[in-house]
Amino acid sequence: MTEAQIIELIREMAEESFPGVVVGIGDDAAVFQFSHDNVLLSIDSFFEGIHFDFSTHNPMDVGWKAACASMSDIAALGGEPVCAMIALSFAGAPSKKLAKGIVGGAIDAFLQYNCALVGGDVSKGKGGVGLTVAVAGIPSLAGPVLRSGACAGDLIAVTGFLGESAAGLEILKSGEKSLLERFPGLVESHLRPRPRIVEGQLIARMRASALEDISDGLSSDIANICRESDVGCEISTESIPLSTEVLRLAEIFGLDPLAWALEGGEDYELVFTCSSSSYEEIEKDMAQLGSFVTKIGTITSDCELKLLRDGKFEEIGKGYDHFR
Amino acid sequence: MTEAQIIELIREMAEESFPGVVVGIGDDAAVFQFSHDNVLLSIDSFFEGIHFDFSTHNPMDVGWKAACASMSDIAALGGEPVCAMIALSFAGAPSKKLAKGIVGGAIDAFLQYNCALVGGDVSKGKGGVGLTVAVAGIPSLAGPVLRSGACAGDLIAVTGFLGESAAGLEILKSGEKSLLERFPGLVESHLRPRPRIVEGQLIARMRASALEDISDGLSSDIANICRESDVGCEISTESIPLSTEVLRLAEIFGLDPLAWALEGGEDYELVFTCSSSSYEEIEKDMAQLGSFVTKIGTITSDCELKLLRDGKFEEIGKGYDHFR
Repeated sequence: MTEAQIIELIREMAEESFPGVVVGIGDDAAVFQFSHDNVLLSIDSFFEGIHFDFSTHNPMDVGWKAACASMSDIAALGGEPVCAMIALSFAGAPSKKLAKGIVGGAIDAFLQYNCALVGGDVSKGKGGVGLTVAVAGIPSLAGPVLRSGACAGDLIAVTGFLGESAAGLEILKSGEKSLLERFPGLVESHLRPRPRIVEGQLIARMRASALEDISDGLSSDIANICRESDVGCEISTESIPLSTEVLRLAEIFGLDPLAWALEGGEDYELVFTCSSSSYEEIEKDMAQLGSFVTKIGTITSDCELKLLRDGKFEEIGKGYDHFR
Repeated sequence: MTEAQIIELIREMAEESFPGVVVGIGDDAAVFQFSHDNVLLSIDSFFEGIHFDFSTHNPMDVGWKAACASMSDIAALGGEPVCAMIALSFAGAPSKKLAKGIVGGAIDAFLQYNCALVGGDVSKGKGGVGLTVAVAGIPSLAGPVLRSGACAGDLIAVTGFLGESAAGLEILKSGEKSLLERFPGLVESHLRPRPRIVEGQLIARMRASALEDISDGLSSDIANICRESDVGCEISTESIPLSTEVLRLAEIFGLDPLAWALEGGEDYELVFTCSSSSYEEIEKDMAQLGSFVTKIGTITSDCELKLLRDGKFEEIGKGYDHFR
């Protein structure tokens, strides 16, 4: 497809009937009417061979995942994504199947979360397919919850199960058909993550002190909260929520399921800190959403990041860095 | 540099004292307070070897140009850029000089136009350096001016001189030191373009019917206006504003200066349509800004795109397409 054809395809595929869209795809810039003065803004890039691979992800998975990972950055402040733009790059003219798959996957994800695709860019790039997604959102009425608000004595908690995405990737990389059939939920967690938007809004409403999404692995994300809040933490490995599927798969591969939770990343669950009383309310209301939270540790005043494993404390690692 | 070091560098370099910045670089998303309900949003990608080359551009030029080209998309609706995010990718860990140069060039450009850098992303990519810039802006009080408002009978006009950037690129590619010294303005036009923000605001205030920036060459950009407005145009090559420098350089190279104006692109001047009376007011007020406009043709009702050259009409070409 040519650049003009891809833009026309995106224009046809994007639903423009969203409230707020004043000018959608097709001009030099989009115009969006926000219902709130304060707007949350985030941007994320995804490259073939670095963030995804067509041997494990089909084009729709790639579009879905890029859109959801980007919307998750808005959930990470307790906000709601409302509109997005995608910059796509291809090393050469893409097939219609490839372009339609990626765009379709992204639009499916945006639709699912009521986020309008309002603009984009199509360009030649080098070395495979690239997607950069910018998302704008609005904060919860209680305001955005930052990484920097954690206080000594606060509880640390997470939504959902951790390590699911890394476990799913392990299955995809093994190529074992029997495992793909036996653990569809884990594979789904890796290919089709779901940003915890309503969960984030609830956590913000209940006055959590700090909030972040788990994109780089729990270790790295809790380290961000501690650094920005100038505090430390103690986390007990025993309380980290691991599903029966993750435990079973780890046994099959002879791998440590905690490593998936701590360093695996891409779970897109949320980690937050709050007072005990807030936690009780969050726990109760989360059940009504069909979700759950788990207390995994405590914020300390000493700036040390401690992990309690088998009765002994060890230092929490630093997580993934593209250039380390 | 590692990913964490690059992010820290950007955080140090970005001025966060801009009005509107509630939460700047360092969290999962930025928070910006807009002074207007309607927000203009655009995104653009720039890749090494496709959009720029380090043999002709130094890192600061690359950052400057990406920032200005992106802000120009906001000028293209008559708006004012207010905040921006940058997603950077490198094939391998970049040197401090490279990272600092690119980020510094972009921040210089944003500062020049009062646009706050509020967020970003640093990632490994494939095949050299990549930048994707998302810019948010606010429309002029008269509202955004779209591509789709041109009417038969409207005048077509442009700001400044055209073909300057393509001429400058020709000098850079030749590597001729004498030309670099003789035509510094043309080289500057290519390496350090300036988005026509105040000019765009003036054009919007004076009720232009359609507006666009000249990023892909006049041919392509006027074709966009005609397609979206469902009209045609007649442009006279004699009235296209070419500077003495462009004419002289074209003579030296034995090349057609009109081709630089029509297909060269990256001038980041503005093309607009309006009534005769609006044009007179725009012309007068533009002089007070130290800028100028030139009438180059007329909008017609027949959807044909005609170029009058040497007394004969020819069809206007379609401009650059990454995959054609």
